[in-house]
Amino acid sequence: MISPLAPAAFPELPKVAGVEAAIGRAGYYKHERPDLLLVRVPEGSTAAGVFTTNSVGSAPTDWCKRALSEGGGKIRGLLANAGCANSFTGPAGDAAAARALASAAEAIGAKQSEMLAASTGVIGVLLNDAKASAVLPSLGAALQPVDWLAAARAIMTTDTFPKGAGAKTTIAGADVAIAGIAKGSGMIAPSMATMLAFAFTDAKIAAPALQALVRDAADMSFNRITVDADRSTNDCLILFATGQAKNPEITDAADPRLADFRAALNDAMADLAIQIVRDGEGAAKLVKVTVTGAASDQSAFVIARTICESPLVKTAIAGEDANWGRIVMAVGRADQPIAKEKLSVKFGPLFAAKDGMISPDYDEAKMSAYMKRAELAIEVHVGVGTSAAVMHTCDLTKRYIEINADYRS
Amino acid sequence: MISPLAPAAFPELPKVAGVEAAIGRAGYYKHERPDLLLVRVPEGSTAAGVFTTNSVGSAPTDWCKRALSEGGGKIRGLLANAGCANSFTGPAGDAAAARALASAAEAIGAKQSEMLAASTGVIGVLLNDAKASAVLPSLGAALQPVDWLAAARAIMTTDTFPKGAGAKTTIAGADVAIAGIAKGSGMIAPSMATMLAFAFTDAKIAAPALQALVRDAADMSFNRITVDADRSTNDCLILFATGQAKNPEITDAADPRLADFRAALNDAMADLAIQIVRDGEGAAKLVKVTVTGAASDQSAFVIARTICESPLVKTAIAGEDANWGRIVMAVGRADQPIAKEKLSVKFGPLFAAKDGMISPDYDEAKMSAYMKRAELAIEVHVGVGTSAAVMHTCDLTKRYIEINADYRS
Repeated sequence: MISPLAPAAFPELPKVAGVEAAIGRAGYYKHERPDLLLVRVPEGSTAAGVFTTNSVGSAPTDWCKRALSEGGGKIRGLLANAGCANSFTGPAGDAAAARALASAAEAIGAKQSEMLAASTGVIGVLLNDAKASAVLPSLGAALQPVDWLAAARAIMTTDTFPKGAGAKTTIAGADVAIAGIAKGSGMIAPSMATMLAFAFTDAKIAAPALQALVRDAADMSFNRITVDADRSTNDCLILFATGQAKNPEITDAADPRLADFRAALNDAMADLAIQIVRDGEGAAKLVKVTVTGAASDQSAFVIARTICESPLVKTAIAGEDANWGRIVMAVGRADQPIAKEKLSVKFGPLFAAKDGMISPDYDEAKMSAYMKRAELAIEVHVGVGTSAAVMHTCDLTKRYIEINADYRS
Repeated sequence: MISPLAPAAFPELPKVAGVEAAIGRAGYYKHERPDLLLVRVPEGSTAAGVFTTNSVGSAPTDWCKRALSEGGGKIRGLLANAGCANSFTGPAGDAAAARALASAAEAIGAKQSEMLAASTGVIGVLLNDAKASAVLPSLGAALQPVDWLAAARAIMTTDTFPKGAGAKTTIAGADVAIAGIAKGSGMIAPSMATMLAFAFTDAKIAAPALQALVRDAADMSFNRITVDADRSTNDCLILFATGQAKNPEITDAADPRLADFRAALNDAMADLAIQIVRDGEGAAKLVKVTVTGAASDQSAFVIARTICESPLVKTAIAGEDANWGRIVMAVGRADQPIAKEKLSVKFGPLFAAKDGMISPDYDEAKMSAYMKRAELAIEVHVGVGTSAAVMHTCDLTKRYIEINADYRS
């Protein structure tokens, strides 16, 4: 069943010069479905990434961090699989990842050290790399300009729809393209949730600048969503830059010529991130939470996150109940500076609470009508400063329980 | 429907000399049920409490903190109501609480400043104190030695069974009694969850010593449970000491003569706290999580709490799935020192993971059989030190969603 919050269609994504891909089936799922994505970018490409902060991590994220650091961001390819996370698999998992990457490198004509890896699926299961290695030669032979929709499908797990976003923009007058795909549905929280996201641009951007760009983009997108506050061992956002566009090479992320690119990248990543919330396990409502009047940006973020992660807020939303008292509770348990006598809570245009108590014009009928919408906006003013934060979450429904009580078996 | 984890019966609680109570109906619920508890303790009694750390708080918790501090713990009575939290109700809420307490004080023949208050119910609704004041004179006339079961029933909200625990112990050879009641089912987290708990002893203990005792008891009981990580605006644990027992007055919580009393109090409070988890909204399984090998007590607690609060761990347990990968994920997202190559996870006597990967003798059939139990023990060793922590939680079921999607309306 496709999420009721899914976009009408997969977007048209721009061609990104130099990016080739092939998808295939290694067989990590019993049923027939693609589960392998092989990507090649040309010589001279750079890559940068942000990875899960979960301290258990996984063989592929450990590999990527090392490869990016030791190779200075000079990367030629990516091997991603669904159906097995290869996390918490010890030295055997590291070895399996390395063998799969050796096969992938051979398939695209690159060195193993120039490869990145990403895996998603059940934690604790060792990657059967032989299954990938068996099909990688044929994938290498099938490389072609990316079919973004097919690539997005190959990395899905409990996702109900494939996720893509992109943009055309310019750097110093030269046309550049951005395209990205992502997967993610549960185990979603700030600090990188169970999510793989790969973005590609044809811009010429040196690796250190790319690293700064991708970190900022993650902070404003994937780190501003939550489905269930759980955060996985395998998350990554990797940005590849092929350098095939005609822009002068950018070596400093603070270069003012990057302004349009940066905005386009951030927008595309935010779009992908919100698609993940739209596909939140069991989600029936998309909720945008805005906190204003906070003491600092960080404080606004912590309050927004506490609201977005509160099971009682999320179940009330599932019940189409404008239970603003639970929002007040969540604000209070965020342990941040607030002036409760100035606290206000709005659902869309409707004040539920104002100046530290129920709003004098509170109208249950209007409120109930608003709560029936599929997309809700909640705004909380905490009355102590001028900082704000925006975060997206979804409701918590019985379907989330169904999906997650039965996932592994 | 009574929780499947409920104890077989309400326990026999000891008589605590000097404590009188009356219950009644103010009408905070539409249906016929008791919603008011009036307690009187004799002249010379002391009281101490711990209160929610939620920064929104409530009129009754604000009142109690002030009354205990200004009165030096000399307290004569308590007025508790269910059906209205009187939280986030501004100055009008404070005034309503004060008026209700004036009536209660008059009913028991004490001063308003010697009264404590506790309210539980929907946040944001102003207490209609006239409803309480109308019945308080008759409650004052009906005071008698406490019927603990009736008192426990009068403070229930979504609870499915009344909660009590007590003990007989000694201080310096003199017999003393402890009896406590509690309510709580959802919005339960460390740092005092949506829970009211009142404990009474006939021991002679000065207020500052009582305060230290009650704080320690809360830390080892109510602060070691979680249902949904949400924490309310109204929680309190209040301990009254009537001084009617024959023990020499204790003025220092570190007095070695308190050892037995302290242990008995902590056990009784832990019993009450675990009863709250047994009544966790929708709970079908009680889960004891033990973390060992941690770098510090606090670190062990943070890891245990992260496991206990993980929606994915809790839904897996609901599904009777020994999804130890999710436990590993939760350990990793606790952001605490761990040695992942030494990490082990046990369900009861069965190792799921050992030394950083799946246990060599992992047996899915045995594991599945274990997971069908109503009470589960999960032990996680994190391999960096010698500290440990124990925490209790419950599973996350569809029934939790049902209860909370529809609570207010």
